[in-house]
Formats: sequence, C-alpha cells, structure tokens
Amino acid sequence: MAGSTFGEIFRITTWGESHGKGIGVVVDGCPAGLPLTEKDIQAFLDRRKPGQSLFTTQRREDDTAQIWSGVFEGKTTGCPISILIPNTDQRSRDYGAIMDIYRPGHADYTYDAKYGIRDYRGGGRSSGRETIGRVAAGAIASKLLKELGVTVRAYAQAIGPAKADPSRIDFSTMYDNPFYMPDPVAAQEAAEAAKAAIGSKDSMGGVVRCTVDGLPAGIGDPCFDKLDGLLAKAVMSIGAVKAVEIGDGIRVSETRGSQNNDSYTTVDGVPVKKTNHGGGI
Amino acid sequence: MAGSTFGEIFRITTWGESHGKGIGVVVDGCPAGLPLTEKDIQAFLDRRKPGQSLFTTQRREDDTAQIWSGVFEGKTTGCPISILIPNTDQRSRDYGAIMDIYRPGHADYTYDAKYGIRDYRGGGRSSGRETIGRVAAGAIASKLLKELGVTVRAYAQAIGPAKADPSRIDFSTMYDNPFYMPDPVAAQEAAEAAKAAIGSKDSMGGVVRCTVDGLPAGIGDPCFDKLDGLLAKAVMSIGAVKAVEIGDGIRVSETRGSQNNDSYTTVDGVPVKKTNHGGGI
Amino acid sequence: MAGSTFGEIFRITTWGESHGKGIGVVVDGCPAGLPLTEKDIQAFLDRRKPGQSLFTTQRREDDTAQIWSGVFEGKTTGCPISILIPNTDQRSRDYGAIMDIYRPGHADYTYDAKYGIRDYRGGGRSSGRETIGRVAAGAIASKLLKELGVTVRAYAQAIGPAKADPSRIDFSTMYDNPFYMPDPVAAQEAAEAAKAAIGSKDSMGGVVRCTVDGLPAGIGDPCFDKLDGLLAKAVMSIGAVKAVEIGDGIRVSETRGSQNNDSYTTVDGVPVKKTNHGGGI
Amino acid sequence: MAGSTFGEIFRITTWGESHGKGIGVVVDGCPAGLPLTEKDIQAFLDRRKPGQSLFTTQRREDDTAQIWSGVFEGKTTGCPISILIPNTDQRSRDYGAIMDIYRPGHADYTYDAKYGIRDYRGGGRSSGRETIGRVAAGAIASKLLKELGVTVRAYAQAIGPAKADPSRIDFSTMYDNPFYMPDPVAAQEAAEAAKAAIGSKDSMGGVVRCTVDGLPAGIGDPCFDKLDGLLAKAVMSIGAVKAVEIGDGIRVSETRGSQNNDSYTTVDGVPVKKTNHGGGI
Repeated sequence: MAGSTFGEIFRITTWGESHGKGIGVVVDGCPAGLPLTEKDIQAFLDRRKPGQSLFTTQRREDDTAQIWSGVFEGKTTGCPISILIPNTDQRSRDYGAIMDIYRPGHADYTYDAKYGIRDYRGGGRSSGRETIGRVAAGAIASKLLKELGVTVRAYAQAIGPAKADPSRIDFSTMYDNPFYMPDPVAAQEAAEAAKAAIGSKDSMGGVVRCTVDGLPAGIGDPCFDKLDGLLAKAVMSIGAVKAVEIGDGIRVSETRGSQNNDSYTTVDGVPVKKTNHGGGI
Repeated sequence: MAGSTFGEIFRITTWGESHGKGIGVVVDGCPAGLPLTEKDIQAFLDRRKPGQSLFTTQRREDDTAQIWSGVFEGKTTGCPISILIPNTDQRSRDYGAIMDIYRPGHADYTYDAKYGIRDYRGGGRSSGRETIGRVAAGAIASKLLKELGVTVRAYAQAIGPAKADPSRIDFSTMYDNPFYMPDPVAAQEAAEAAKAAIGSKDSMGGVVRCTVDGLPAGIGDPCFDKLDGLLAKAVMSIGAVKAVEIGDGIRVSETRGSQNNDSYTTVDGVPVKKTNHGGGI
Repeated sequence: MAGSTFGEIFRITTWGESHGKGIGVVVDGCPAGLPLTEKDIQAFLDRRKPGQSLFTTQRREDDTAQIWSGVFEGKTTGCPISILIPNTDQRSRDYGAIMDIYRPGHADYTYDAKYGIRDYRGGGRSSGRETIGRVAAGAIASKLLKELGVTVRAYAQAIGPAKADPSRIDFSTMYDNPFYMPDPVAAQEAAEAAKAAIGSKDSMGGVVRCTVDGLPAGIGDPCFDKLDGLLAKAVMSIGAVKAVEIGDGIRVSETRGSQNNDSYTTVDGVPVKKTNHGGGI
Repeated sequence: MAGSTFGEIFRITTWGESHGKGIGVVVDGCPAGLPLTEKDIQAFLDRRKPGQSLFTTQRREDDTAQIWSGVFEGKTTGCPISILIPNTDQRSRDYGAIMDIYRPGHADYTYDAKYGIRDYRGGGRSSGRETIGRVAAGAIASKLLKELGVTVRAYAQAIGPAKADPSRIDFSTMYDNPFYMPDPVAAQEAAEAAKAAIGSKDSMGGVVRCTVDGLPAGIGDPCFDKLDGLLAKAVMSIGAVKAVEIGDGIRVSETRGSQNNDSYTTVDGVPVKKTNHGGGI
C-alpha cells in the first residue's frame, strides 16, 4: 500500500533509493507566488550532504537539487513542485557483501518479509538517503513559513554522552561543528566520543531538539490530527528514531499535575502561559 | 490544496507543465515483483505522443520514459516508482502571444483567478501534456492488471460526425489509423472530417469508449468509493471531458426499468446477467 | 476497505441500512459559529422523505433528524456534527421473499460477491435510504454556502418522457408537484407517465439538473481534484445514476470547438464568458 | 479542517462531547463476517468507564454501547458500523464556573483561539470522554486481530512514583486493581500515592506500556506510514500523552549501536532477533 505521501494541504511524496538513479520529492499544494530557486533548496541539502566530516558516511555526493516543475519565472505557481537529486556516487560501493545478510538495526529483514524482493544496495529505500526528499520539501516549507512569521530550528541536543548545556548554548556557533550542536564545549566532547566509537566500529545515539517560533495557537485538528500527533508521526517515521517527546516528554510521567500543568496569566490582555512544560501545544 | 494525487492503495502523483523541464509521475503502492522496464512504459507513451499525424499538435516530442526508482533488477520492489519524461521541444514555440489572452476552452482564466500567477506557455499544468503522467502510470497498472487476468481497452467510438459502427468493429485495425478507431470506414470519415475542421481552424468533439474484461464482481467500496464514482472522477478530471456514462448512460433517463434493468440467470451455476445496460457495475 | 467518507476539508461519513436501527452521518470540518438547528436539517429531509405521494416507496417514515454533537448553544463548534435519523417503519415489511433472489438493477449480487454476507432487508446499505445521510450533510453544507453567497439548486429536468421546457420553467412552482419539476405542464405529464408505469409495475428514468450560483472561479484543484471530477464522483456514487454531464455534456462530442468553446469578453473590466457550453467549469 | 478520522483501510471516525447527548464512532472498512455484538464492545467500555474507583472522575456513566448499523444477524456486513454511547450524567454538573477560565493542562484556550467558540462543559470535545469512541472501535479491532492471531495488551507500567517491577508482573492480577497494573505491590503503592495526590488536589503522571503479539513482519508502509509512525500518531493524539517510545525509546540516545542494534540468528531456519531493543519494529 502507498505510504510515501505525507500531509493533506501541503502534501509531499518522496521516492528514491540509496543506489538508484536518484532521490526526489513532489511537493503539492504549495501556495502560488512564493519566490523559489534551486539555491533555496540547495542550502538545506548542503547541510545534510554526506562526506563532509569524519562522522558521517564517507560516500561523496554533491546532492544537487533540480526543480523540474511548479516554478515559473522564479515563483511557485501552485502546481506540484518536482525536485530531483541525482545519485552520482552510487556505483562505487560493492554491496554484494550485504546481499545475503540482514544487518542489525536496519530494515533489510523487514523489506524481505514484506516484499519478497529487496534492493540491497545501501539499504535501498530504507537508506538514510531517503531523508533527502524530506529535506528538500522542508526547504520549501521553511521558506513559506518564514513568510508567515514562523521559524523552525532543530539542533543536536545530545550526541552519545555529550549534552548541550543550556547555559552554554550559542546558536551562532551551531554550524561551526559537524554535529550542528550549538554548544562548542559539548560539540568538542561529541567529536571525541564519536571518534572513539568509530575507532571501535561502533555508533552512538543522540537527541535532536526542535523548536518552532511564531506559530499561532490552534494549528492542527482534533482529535486524530492534533499537531502533536502529526509531528509524532512525521518524526517517528524517520529511520532510527525511537522516541518522540513534546515539552517535558517522558518526565511528565514522574511529575504531579501541579508541577506540570502550565497555568495562564495575561500580558497586555493576551493569555500567556507562565511555564512551558507542555511544549506549547 | 494538493490535488495531483489519485488512488489510495495504488496511488499516483503527477507533476509537470507543457513547457517546463519535463513531466512525470510517482506510482506508489505497486506490488513488488512485477517485471517492469522502460519499454513497457514507452509502448504506451508512443501511442499518445504528439507529432505523429496531421491531426494532433505538431510539436515534436519523443516522450522518452525514464524510470528513476522502485525497480531493481527488472522487477518492482514495492517502493515508489518515479517516472520522468523530459520535455525536449519546449523552447521552439513563441507563447508571448497568449501571455495576455484567455483562450476559450482552456483553463487560462481559471488558473489566473485561482493562483494569481500562470505559466502561460502552452497551458502550463493544464496542457494536454499533463496526461503523460497518467499514461505512464497506466502502463504499469495495465501490466499489473494483466497478471490478474484483467484487460482494459479504450478506443475512439466517435470523432465528430464519424461513428464506429458496431457491425464493422475490428480491433485488429485499431492502430492502423491515428484516431485508434477500430472501424476502418469510420476512421476514414473521421480523417476527412478532421481535415475539414483543421482547414477551417476548428476542432471536433468525440467519444472514447473503454471496456474492462476479467474484473471480478465486488471491486470498489460503498458508498462514495463505488467503482463508477471512482471511474467518473478519474475520467472527468481529464481535460476537455464533459460527460461520463456507464453502460447505457444518459439513455437510461428515457427508458423504463423493465428495459434497463439487467436480470439474472445462471450459467453453470454461476449468476450471470442476461443483458448489460448497466455497464456491468 | 473504507468507502463511506467523502471530502477532505468538509468531510462526511455516512452509515446505516434500510432496515437497521437508523441512518446517519458525521460531518467533520464544518467551520465553527454557523447557526444550526435540527429544523435546518429537517427541512431538507422532509423534501426527500418517502410516503408523500403515489410515486415513491409507500414506506412511512418521519425521518426525524437528531443532532448528537458538534452544536453548542445553537451554533456549530468546529467539532464533528453527528446526525442520527432513526428508522421507525423497518419492521413492517416482509423481506423474506427477496432473501434468496438477486433483484435486477440492485446491488444484491454485488454485495454477496464482495462480502459473502448481505443485509437483504430492503437492500441494506445499498438502499435508496442511504442518501438520507447525504441530504442531512447537504443541509449543513447548503446553509454554510449560503453564508458565502453560494446557492445550489437541483430539480427534475426530465421524468421519463416528460421534459421541463425552458420557456415554461417557473421555480416558484417547483415544490407544488411531487417530482420537484419547475414546469407545471411537464410535471403533469410526468404524473401521468408515472401512473402508467406504476400501473404496469414498471419504473422510469429521469434527469436531475443542478445549478450552482455565486461560486467564485478557481474552486477545485488540478489535476485529479478538479471540481468537475469531484462532482462527478459525488453524483455517480448515488444509486441508479449512470451518467454525469457538465455543461453541454455528451452533446459536446458532436459539436465543433468553434461552437462549444466559451469565449471571453469583459463586463465592467471583469472577464466574463459570452456563452456557457462548459457549465462554467 | 476535518481531523476526527483515523486509518485508511480500517477507518474510524469519532464524534461527541463530554456533555453533549452522547459519544460515538463510525468504524468503516471492517471485514464482513466477524461475529459482533454489543457485549463485545461493552466489555471494553466497562474497563474505561468512570466512577468505578476513588481514582477517576466521580461522574456516573453506564456508557452503554448501542450498535446502529453494519451488523446483521450477529455478524459484520462490511458496511460502516455506527456505535453510539449516550451521555446520561451530563446535566448534573455546574460548569458555569469554568466558562470564563482557561484551565491549565486543558485545551480550553486552544479551542477558543482556534474556533472562537467553545463547548466549555467538561472540556467539550477535548474531554477524556473522547476516548470512548476509540475504545469502542478498539474492541472491534481487537476481536478482528484475535481472529488473525494478533493480541494487544496495554497496562499501567508506572503511576507516579509506583513502577511495576518486571520480576513481579503477573497479568492474572491486572484487573484486580483500578490502575490495571499487573504488579500487586506496585498497584498498592500507586493507590497510596494517588490518595495522597488527590488529598492535595493534585494529579500524577504515569506510563502505559503496550505490547502486540503475533503480528507478522512487514506491517506498515515506508516511509511516512511506517508502523511506528502510525502508532506514534495514534498514541500522541490521546489527551495528556506527551511522549511515545518504541522499544528502548529515549534510552537509545545514550547507548551505542553495538548495545542497541538487535542482531539476528535463526531458529528452525527462521530469522529471529536475539534481543529486542528496537521494539520489534
């Protein structure tokens, strides 16, 4: 059954495998009149592309975005925006070795069980490269939201044992390290821990924190399409993600309502929450 | 709002404009294991491609199908199949002349009213080239259905005043004329009528008849997703289509139930309809 | 598979069988703040309810609408509106006789083939009573559209051989006859033809014409969710409907583009079509 | 926009407010032939109904399930199953006091901001009573899954400071305490903690653990409709839920791949995971 589409009004459909001809996304429902160029998308792809540091896959890919439709004279037309990112380094690996084994922590077995056939080269559709289509679509969403006064920021809060310290967070330093960690001290710890893990052919978990600013109250629809439900689905569908927390998240289970509930006050006549244990949702 | 996706289980998403870089479709939900090559798709595109006779647009396009994902070692994998057809002849026309006018029988005004911006080159998204994505997806659907014993056949039943005569229909002659009309006499009449219409810079309407064989009873779901409802939506969403009929169609309005209702008999113990005024649905 | 839901933003889900406990609909996505009472819905149900003339089923049903949710202090809240219409006359018929036969022109065989089980009482889910949920939802949609300046009018254009004559149409007379035919002369002919058909235990076809006024240009979304595609699906999913036409409909197949295409002019600077062969879509 | 529908093939649509006439759900897409009675649903509703212990709302509701459609002669027909649960105790509370205040930890403010109108009685649509529709639908899903050899079990793993100890878990005791905690010792601790919290007009968080047995590999669809994504959406859309974890969940962020990845072995020729840090997904 079809599962590669997300969203109703602004709807994205992704496609592509790790070692196929390319990766792409169709963004349908983007409003007309938004200025959009390949550079807008490239900026986001450049941040995710592999081979830029010791700490990611060593595959070399430029991941160059091509817009094939939906943009005319520099602006979106309201019609579907098709973005294509060719794979260029896909022939250089020998994946024969993994053809007959199921790698732990990967979807190899699941795909075989489900489909009876599997593009074993680099994980095929279940590769981390699948997120390229999401990132490209996200670049458009981000630009659109910015026009509406909404900004989205995601960063590495923890990489293995290294945790960003709230007192040290400085977003101007975030892109100075390959982890996009806005705490230079923690980023240095992360680099050392990562080197050690790589040295022992191991990997580490981490925590991504995402904040959204400027969103008006009332986005999302009860009951199943609540904003936190939609976000949880989107995030949990990314490979390797095993937990989603909103606000205080799992810690809520150990606190009392009096500690956790965000009570209201008014500032200049507008209702405002005094605290934000609920993540603002 | 997103409107370029059709279907739930076998789901297609089309994109592309008449004079953009290309046209394409993402087919999601195709079962794994179906043998599929670009040739399978090309055979269908070749039947619709322009510039093959006097009677279609004179634009020259090879309309070459490229499969970018979802097929591995000659078989579908269950993952989205992305098909791309580059536009090659899109620079040769001067569309400046239609930039400022609304053509009758086209969607120019509608797009302007809806989006406030319009890719005026050749109709943009509302061009007849939009159907390329449908045809490419249809090639896959057709191959899949064939494996299930279901065949679909569409042909021109009427072109302007020329009507295929049931007594003369011979499907072996269908592709001998540019109208895909399985009656050589009617096809000749159609050619003459079309030449005359073109001579007076005019065009003609027509009727496409589509039959499906081998489909088991019970496909479709009550009440809104009835098969005839889904078919009507699909067909009516094609540019220029203004009527959809099932079985006797509009003639049902003038007949009595006793004439129109298909009564049952049994053949070898299986219920069979004696007549087919209802189109089998 | 689920098929009883229609629409994305204003979404309706219908349920109920001819001889079950009742019929109903859930309307989700109706904007908040619309004044709504059971009387608004009842007015529409009263127009469709059976047993009001010789010409419909003789079953007696009051078809009383109950609103169970989504309305607070006389206004919609934005939450799903659940409407329930109990069946009251469902025990009075003996349907044992049709338990073992497949009626022509009904879905009896289809349901058996699809589900292997069938609520044979009065057609079960495939009964004409299924439209009660649509009518109740339509009453809400109609009230909402009216606030937006959009009006929808449907009437009988033809009943068997009786056809409303455009020169005689007078909508003030429409509800004076049981066919909702706005031409008193044709309505009288229809009554006679219907009596004759009933006398010979037969039935007749007809044509319903629906016009929408006040709708702005640009509603619907290319390509699959075009307005005419969505309308065609909705209409074709009603039991017994076998054809859908937009504008000139099937007659377009026999006319030339020069006759059929609606050219534009401007009235007070606004683009206006000179003719309306395309049904305004 | 409509947000009260969940699922594509087995699709549920819920409706109803805390103090409206009732709560309900329409289950569409349930296969035909499943034996189903109101008792099947009642058994699940009885486990969630209020007023059974000190620890829940003191509102008295029988929460009696009525099946209004989709079941014929004790079996599902494949048609939508409409379930209605009348509210009976809704008139006995005075909610005037909360008409003008926004309660912390509730959706009062959000609804006002979104809709400009709010059914303030008991939270309206955002009340915990909204889950009644989910539970009723879940009763059907549960019965269906059982026929397929799939069982689903959810229980309280922690209530405030009381945590079920894996070494003491005994599911035969689970329904002996009002928390549905399968560890009698922890359940006793939970009761004491809850009494203390209630004594200070406070509330406590908790953790629900859900396990599914018998599910074949390959359920869900890449990429957005992965099983963990769908589950996360469903769970996170329940009021008060702020975190969803699969397998080791948030603890994965602090472990290495070598600890966390589940490697394979074969048992009787079938691939089996040696560990289950990934939650089996």
